[in-house]
Amino acid sequence: MTKKIILDLDTGIDDALAIAYALGSPELDLIGITATYGNVTVGRSVRNSLAVLELLGRTDVPVFAGVGHSLTTDSFTPSELSAFIHGGNGIGEIEIPTAGRNVEQQTATDFIIESAHRYGEDLTCIPTGAATNIVAALEKDPTIKDAMGPIVMMGGALTTEGNVNKWTEANVSQDPEATDRLFRSGAEVVMVGLDVTHQTLLTKAETSTWRDFGTEAGRCYADMTDYYIDFETKAMDIAGCGLHDPLAVAVAADRSLVTLLPITMQVDLEGPTRGRTIGSLAGLSDPVKTVGVAVEVDVERFLGEFMTRVGSVLSVGPEGWGGSTPGCPRA
Amino acid sequence: MTKKIILDLDTGIDDALAIAYALGSPELDLIGITATYGNVTVGRSVRNSLAVLELLGRTDVPVFAGVGHSLTTDSFTPSELSAFIHGGNGIGEIEIPTAGRNVEQQTATDFIIESAHRYGEDLTCIPTGAATNIVAALEKDPTIKDAMGPIVMMGGALTTEGNVNKWTEANVSQDPEATDRLFRSGAEVVMVGLDVTHQTLLTKAETSTWRDFGTEAGRCYADMTDYYIDFETKAMDIAGCGLHDPLAVAVAADRSLVTLLPITMQVDLEGPTRGRTIGSLAGLSDPVKTVGVAVEVDVERFLGEFMTRVGSVLSVGPEGWGGSTPGCPRA
Repeated sequence: MTKKIILDLDTGIDDALAIAYALGSPELDLIGITATYGNVTVGRSVRNSLAVLELLGRTDVPVFAGVGHSLTTDSFTPSELSAFIHGGNGIGEIEIPTAGRNVEQQTATDFIIESAHRYGEDLTCIPTGAATNIVAALEKDPTIKDAMGPIVMMGGALTTEGNVNKWTEANVSQDPEATDRLFRSGAEVVMVGLDVTHQTLLTKAETSTWRDFGTEAGRCYADMTDYYIDFETKAMDIAGCGLHDPLAVAVAADRSLVTLLPITMQVDLEGPTRGRTIGSLAGLSDPVKTVGVAVEVDVERFLGEFMTRVGSVLSVGPEGWGGSTPGCPRA
Repeated sequence: MTKKIILDLDTGIDDALAIAYALGSPELDLIGITATYGNVTVGRSVRNSLAVLELLGRTDVPVFAGVGHSLTTDSFTPSELSAFIHGGNGIGEIEIPTAGRNVEQQTATDFIIESAHRYGEDLTCIPTGAATNIVAALEKDPTIKDAMGPIVMMGGALTTEGNVNKWTEANVSQDPEATDRLFRSGAEVVMVGLDVTHQTLLTKAETSTWRDFGTEAGRCYADMTDYYIDFETKAMDIAGCGLHDPLAVAVAADRSLVTLLPITMQVDLEGPTRGRTIGSLAGLSDPVKTVGVAVEVDVERFLGEFMTRVGSVLSVGPEGWGGSTPGCPRA
């Protein structure tokens, strides 16, 4: 049976790839997107999510605005690095027309809570930006943690260096307190961090096949992903772009793609390593571990699934989905 | 067939336990002990290793003095913490008589190199203190890295906090440059760190069974291990003492006791996290990983093996081994 999923996105190029992966996965039913911040603001995340869904002809998927800043701040502005990676508009400076519909009235927090009660263990939440929305839901209604299915997060770095600095990963850096509370919440958490996502690299050889589909969606996705690949190959000195957010969706669909280490996790909140995700020394004797950290990944199988699933969405385009056909002019 | 092993020890209470584990393991042939520093100085490590071997009736095992300080210092004094954990004399303030024989003339470095050539892949080196000796050997004769068997080190912390501070483990803290060079040497390294050793706790219920043997060795080992347990239960707030060094010996004998994560490791040498052992982000794409980090351990099976093997040595005492019978007065 299909799993109900909520994507909690800071959309973002790899967030857009995660949407396509989710829509192309027969095991998954995307019931809604909640907007968080990180790569972009919540406002831009809402706008981009709605635009991408319309490009893919899926105007039936509702989008909800989430909390706009971290637990310890009262506003949020994307870093210069984020603008450099994802473009000032979050989607690689390409233009995807603004959608013809609006964000939902319900808040992200309430949508998550309502869905947890409606679908129970069949619901998987997938936060791929700051963890603020998920934690807001878990703390507003503590009963959902035992009712709902796992939270599969993209974020953190356990066995490898960070990407903001040597010990901090970008998503966790946005709201370390939120990720720490998520780890300690008792909810089942699967952490898909740089340990594995940095092993799953996409190159322009792959994106060129999307352009060959001759669809607007294929061309838009190829253009924005190439922007991302250009950054990652230059700034991170790797041979493509890491498929961070799509891998979290893939793990939600099929956990056997990764090896999970059961562990009691926490986030350093004080001192020079603020934002580091690390196992608790005292927690080594905990009889039950609520967090599983992905430490190994079947790269070849994941990349195969990625190309099949994303390709199935981009090759059809909105026509096939019954939606409108927005233009996607090159920037 | 039995594996030839060299224990590279800063003897130390858990180093003394590692000696007993090695001597009680039918798969292992302890061909020598090299002295390093950490818990104690090299001089004290030599003295304690000779004394413990005589207590256990194994005066046939030679002891070699190693390098006395790190690659970046010109002297070494044990920290106050080390004296607190292991006692000022390194063995819990109990008295084990000074041995009737002396340290070998050959250096630790040359003994390791000679043994690597003599035994090839059948040789396993087990450093449980600063990695300085092993690195000195690997750098004096670079041909040994491909000739010899694995280096099974006790040290580091990958998925969990450190014990010197939140990111640094004690052995690595002694000489971060040496451990970093060991990781980058290309030699096969198995890292047995706090990730697993902190899960293997020994309590006074176990040590009391050694006292019941009625042997000098049993009484000495029970007394010194209780000293160690008292520290660990108070200072580290855990329910016994971590069997750090013995677990490395156990893994050398039977690797199936742990789950190894293949990874390209490095040590932070600059900045606030100096001494942290962590996977390299760039190294995630290395096709061959030369380091395996133990991230899970079969605690129950290890503790069973530990009690059987150490018990087989302590219950017999020096009489059974054909050695002398030194006294072991309580301090």
